[in-house]
Amino acid sequence: MVTETSRISVDALWQFTSDVMVGFGVKREEADQVADVLIASDVQGIDSHGVPRMKMYTDRLRDGLVNTDPKMTVITETPATLALDADNGMGHPASIEAMKRCIAKAKDIGLCMTTVRNSNHFGIAGYYAAMALEDGLCGVAMTNATPLVVPTGARHAYLSTAPIAAAIPAGKEKPILLDAATSTVAWGKIEIAQRSNKLIPAGWAVDKDGNITTNPHEAVALTPLGGTRETSGQKGYGLGLFIEMLCGQLASGPWGRYVKGSRDEVPGPTQTGHAFMAWRIDAFAREEDFKDGIDQMIQELRAMETLDGVDRVLIPGEPEYEAEADRRANGIPVHPVVVEQIREIGREVGVEAPF
Amino acid sequence: MVTETSRISVDALWQFTSDVMVGFGVKREEADQVADVLIASDVQGIDSHGVPRMKMYTDRLRDGLVNTDPKMTVITETPATLALDADNGMGHPASIEAMKRCIAKAKDIGLCMTTVRNSNHFGIAGYYAAMALEDGLCGVAMTNATPLVVPTGARHAYLSTAPIAAAIPAGKEKPILLDAATSTVAWGKIEIAQRSNKLIPAGWAVDKDGNITTNPHEAVALTPLGGTRETSGQKGYGLGLFIEMLCGQLASGPWGRYVKGSRDEVPGPTQTGHAFMAWRIDAFAREEDFKDGIDQMIQELRAMETLDGVDRVLIPGEPEYEAEADRRANGIPVHPVVVEQIREIGREVGVEAPF
Repeated sequence: MVTETSRISVDALWQFTSDVMVGFGVKREEADQVADVLIASDVQGIDSHGVPRMKMYTDRLRDGLVNTDPKMTVITETPATLALDADNGMGHPASIEAMKRCIAKAKDIGLCMTTVRNSNHFGIAGYYAAMALEDGLCGVAMTNATPLVVPTGARHAYLSTAPIAAAIPAGKEKPILLDAATSTVAWGKIEIAQRSNKLIPAGWAVDKDGNITTNPHEAVALTPLGGTRETSGQKGYGLGLFIEMLCGQLASGPWGRYVKGSRDEVPGPTQTGHAFMAWRIDAFAREEDFKDGIDQMIQELRAMETLDGVDRVLIPGEPEYEAEADRRANGIPVHPVVVEQIREIGREVGVEAPF
Repeated sequence: MVTETSRISVDALWQFTSDVMVGFGVKREEADQVADVLIASDVQGIDSHGVPRMKMYTDRLRDGLVNTDPKMTVITETPATLALDADNGMGHPASIEAMKRCIAKAKDIGLCMTTVRNSNHFGIAGYYAAMALEDGLCGVAMTNATPLVVPTGARHAYLSTAPIAAAIPAGKEKPILLDAATSTVAWGKIEIAQRSNKLIPAGWAVDKDGNITTNPHEAVALTPLGGTRETSGQKGYGLGLFIEMLCGQLASGPWGRYVKGSRDEVPGPTQTGHAFMAWRIDAFAREEDFKDGIDQMIQELRAMETLDGVDRVLIPGEPEYEAEADRRANGIPVHPVVVEQIREIGREVGVEAPF
């Protein structure tokens, strides 16, 4: 039993993740893609969406709730739009394929929006938005998920955390990479407080009656970004509703309220929906001017006078770039409980962990 | 001198507004469009963006800072994108024209995004998003403005309130109409607290040193949606940055930091930028299914169990629809100070107020 957080090499964790997915019936090519997204999350320091989530995926695979031989189909399309059905396949390969097609159409005609229905949890939205950067495009990725966010004034959850990620190319600077749920915080932050028995700030979460609670053990749902009405929670609620519409009704699938997840008493396919966007910069502006402007903005923000105790103003994506540099060099820190858990998952399908 | 808030008929206020704009040199057709947007704002109860803002526009017209004979030009376009230059014309007619062209292209090819540079303050973003509804499309409108929002961790403002509006058609229900700045609150809420000498909630605004203040008289800038870092203000900052990029660098113009406004010591053209989007529902989904899904979502949200003291969960746009019903029937309530102010503005150009 490992008792201290150990560092595991990126390559070893990637290979193990892919092998485990294959062990649970996912085809090798798709298993590699699942590993790509999960390990990208760990590498970027977004621990809540990396290998600690492996169990969530393998539980659903074991129960036969995910199709390991999906045939993605086109529902409808125009030169600038594409609506796909992922046939209940793993969310990561479905989303990589959807974003690839979105980028190809945007390269052709300047701009594309692509929806996906009948998919599953796709990990970090930022992975797909960032795919657009490889071709010098701007990218956006959104998803719905199981309900966890309380509309302003209501007692119970109706919306998912409805995250949006956006990737914006820069010139000399690293791209801007925004990845934000439209809830005040991620559920993972509540879990961290539960484990450490620490109070949470008022405004993050609500109890079973919908009242703001600072006790993480009483928290059952999250507030929308902005918190209560007094601090404009209705704006986060509205933005979440907009993303739900794109990933739900526009994708010809269910929205937060009806997306299934690990909390459901009667398990079933999640019917998760996503929406992706990509556009060519030169469809609007001179690419060099655009990139110079982004560089200038980044440099000016970074040079701003800061509040006491704040080192510098951060650019969206910077904390992830810093984590990546560290973790690629020194390995990914994985909590001992998670190490035990994923070793056990590996053993179940005959994959021995090399750590 | 009127001492009580009086109700002025919608038609009278509209005609007066158009006449005043003509008095300040705006062509009649464009003056009517300015009146359309300003009065729509008053009618919907968004008093901060209606005739109380008339002075802001006429001050700039008097000083020759706005071009009253603009020639809008196309910077570049593809079948799904369009980048326009508004030639420093009034923001309202420029934005109506830009959204019309955006809708026309979206009708043709499924989806369009249109940017505008060298524009001016365009009033409420929701007006332009809602234009898409007339053709059964979804619409989005965004703008930048003069800097007023402090990036998380910084002491001073860099971003504008960078609002986004979205209009989503429903079936039997009224459309969803979201209109939200990416700041915690609008500056107008600080002004209201200043006038009534009431403290503001912690998290809305900062003082000259960038520290959170509850004294509205010490407030000089706003927090991004989410407030401080503890309550995820960095998400509102990131969303604001994304909207600044669309309306700034992508539109081939300046962003928040460099957009001029009434606070500038050396006045000049504002160089405001906007971004609009529109898409056909049937480019993604069966229109009837989409609308049924939106109706269902609206009805379910409205029927949700509420917190004590909350009448019902509101759908984005509902407060505006309610204000509209009242004000179309009973007239627009205008504060006596504003009545005096706009009468005076009218007299300056020989337009007598019929109220």
